[in-house]
Amino acid sequence: MDNRPIGIFDSGVGGLTVTSRVIKELPNEAIVYFGDTARVPYGSKSKETITKFAKQDIRFLLSRNVKAVVIACNTVSSNSLEELKSTFNIPIFGVVEPGAAQAAEITVNKNIGVIATEATIRSGAYEKEILKNDSNVNVYSKACPLFVPLAEEGWVNEEVTLLTANKYISDLTAKDIDTIVMGCTHYPLLKECIKKAVGPNVALVDPAYETALVLKEYLLKNNMARLKEKEPEHEFYVSDQTEMFGRICRQALGRNFASRVINIEEF
Amino acid sequence: MDNRPIGIFDSGVGGLTVTSRVIKELPNEAIVYFGDTARVPYGSKSKETITKFAKQDIRFLLSRNVKAVVIACNTVSSNSLEELKSTFNIPIFGVVEPGAAQAAEITVNKNIGVIATEATIRSGAYEKEILKNDSNVNVYSKACPLFVPLAEEGWVNEEVTLLTANKYISDLTAKDIDTIVMGCTHYPLLKECIKKAVGPNVALVDPAYETALVLKEYLLKNNMARLKEKEPEHEFYVSDQTEMFGRICRQALGRNFASRVINIEEF
Repeated sequence: MDNRPIGIFDSGVGGLTVTSRVIKELPNEAIVYFGDTARVPYGSKSKETITKFAKQDIRFLLSRNVKAVVIACNTVSSNSLEELKSTFNIPIFGVVEPGAAQAAEITVNKNIGVIATEATIRSGAYEKEILKNDSNVNVYSKACPLFVPLAEEGWVNEEVTLLTANKYISDLTAKDIDTIVMGCTHYPLLKECIKKAVGPNVALVDPAYETALVLKEYLLKNNMARLKEKEPEHEFYVSDQTEMFGRICRQALGRNFASRVINIEEF
Repeated sequence: MDNRPIGIFDSGVGGLTVTSRVIKELPNEAIVYFGDTARVPYGSKSKETITKFAKQDIRFLLSRNVKAVVIACNTVSSNSLEELKSTFNIPIFGVVEPGAAQAAEITVNKNIGVIATEATIRSGAYEKEILKNDSNVNVYSKACPLFVPLAEEGWVNEEVTLLTANKYISDLTAKDIDTIVMGCTHYPLLKECIKKAVGPNVALVDPAYETALVLKEYLLKNNMARLKEKEPEHEFYVSDQTEMFGRICRQALGRNFASRVINIEEF
């Protein structure tokens, strides 16, 4: 039994969709969330900068006495997981391994598409992890840099978004994929357009769900679950106070939470 | 005569379009450019964070011994100019005042549109400055958050971009504007689509050009121009090394320049 909270961080507010999954699977656990809204996005930046920012994010979560860290951000999970694991002496969970395992499991024709930020695609992490699970799979990847700003603009079901999705995804559908990994926390918000672009016979994988299951299994196996003496109290922190947090919070968690601003550059 | 360089900074690489104008108008001057590519964009962030980042940017330029600072970024110019001027004892030039003056001068029917980032529109700075020049003008403003990612994706003349421009700008054309201010350094890269969206009878104002003229006048009047003993050497700094710098550099300046990475959080 370990009553300390679970730390979750993301480059911004997209990680709230992962937080929602974790709360659903582990309703007794207290969450400390950090969103780096002052420096968002990470997905267009270099591996060095992504890793440096992620280390500050984890040092902040450690200052809040967390027992484990979930990297909600695909960009960090794919570029920095190994270095973060070797730097910090705490269980750290990324979203890439669980998402890759799920995609490899459900594909029938062995053609998998991956859509994500530029930095995630550049890292090759999804491809590597999928091939670890099944070396007979073909992986086709496509960076979709406009999806995050489209989701943040709230254009989740517009003609512009569908046209953009078609433009990005036509390369993948041409390869006869039967499974596609939404390798960025914002992408499930555009699910309707992505579904239309890939067609009715392609399965959508959201790594957030699988990650929550992996975390749950780990906590139970290691006797680290929280004892429910009272309702858990979640804490939300950001590096910049913007309207976006409240909007995505309501969308992902069904209600607003107050967020406190911290100076992440001090960590 | 003052042979020190001119400092120019921006949230990222968009300010290279302003740099190009300054080099054209002031070919004897040496430039020190800083682009905050690790924390880009500023346009979706709060006034407090924008001002904090801008102070670090200027402290870095001062460490390079500049004689004057040009804020290429509309978001900083519109949110932080007064505070920066009162913080630093050096001539500081924003892009909003020159752009607003030009728009007020050329409008005939007194209806002006302004397109910019969310933070620039929220500040109301363009409206305030235009009304200072001519209190009889009507100013209609529209935030266009997708324009920067579209320009950075290189989709400068695509159907998606034209559709997006029409969606953003139809509110303004409905007001019978005859002049539109491109209040973000990235927007001139999308000029073709913006022109189509506003129609042939609306004049486009690019504040970068007017800003270069204001700077030139100031340097000459105050005897601060550089004496051309030899060709000026420009220096380019970024906070993250990304491919974008080289691409926009070639587009805006006609050739690539080497850029050095600095840790802006130390300033």
